[in-house]
Amino acid sequence: MTTQAKTMTTQDIANRLVELCKQGQFHQAHAELFDENAESIEPESAAQMGWEVKTKGMDNLKKKGEQWNNMVEEFHGISVSDPLVTTNGITFTTSMDVTMKGQPRNSMEEICVYQIRNGKIISEQFFY
Amino acid sequence: MTTQAKTMTTQDIANRLVELCKQGQFHQAHAELFDENAESIEPESAAQMGWEVKTKGMDNLKKKGEQWNNMVEEFHGISVSDPLVTTNGITFTTSMDVTMKGQPRNSMEEICVYQIRNGKIISEQFFY
Repeated sequence: MTTQAKTMTTQDIANRLVELCKQGQFHQAHAELFDENAESIEPESAAQMGWEVKTKGMDNLKKKGEQWNNMVEEFHGISVSDPLVTTNGITFTTSMDVTMKGQPRNSMEEICVYQIRNGKIISEQFFY
Repeated sequence: MTTQAKTMTTQDIANRLVELCKQGQFHQAHAELFDENAESIEPESAAQMGWEVKTKGMDNLKKKGEQWNNMVEEFHGISVSDPLVTTNGITFTTSMDVTMKGQPRNSMEEICVYQIRNGKIISEQFFY
């Protein structure tokens, strides 16, 4: 056996995830807390806005993050609720204050759901 | 224009839904708060346990409820978290204390997500 870091509990992951989201550090959250094969799921309606509904794997999640960054004119801030936690799941709500390129400043609310296996996030799903 | 009941806000729906879930009155929640064409979504893994992953329409949701009831030996109780609410969404966690037929008494935790349009729930999705 090799030396391994202690597996994070779902509550540990929830606390760190909320901390990083509050700082707008979404890329850091992916790098630190997500499984290599993690999936990201948007609502079906997001396809009309040029988003893939399902994105799989860290390389593709990183590209998705870059796609988002390229659409943002200015990120003004985000508020994040306290998380609700089950054995293998995390849910919380966010409200982002953001100006997308070519659009007026807007408030975007989401429900976020994360599924955890073996101390890593294997999926994120957004509802808006 | 005909006389209509005042459209429920998402917070109204969340409060009533949590109240009914705490009483185990899932059928009443469907009848009272759901749109006629509402969808119910289980995890992909539920297919292995004989569940449809997607069920659409109140008639089929009713049948799904009966399928659940037929699998339960005894429903001991449920705890429900306070809901988190966005403009068009509700999320909360539940922990059910239940004995399924042929199985030992068990605690089943879920994250529940509901999407609302025009004062009615148009989808429920469960994560476990």
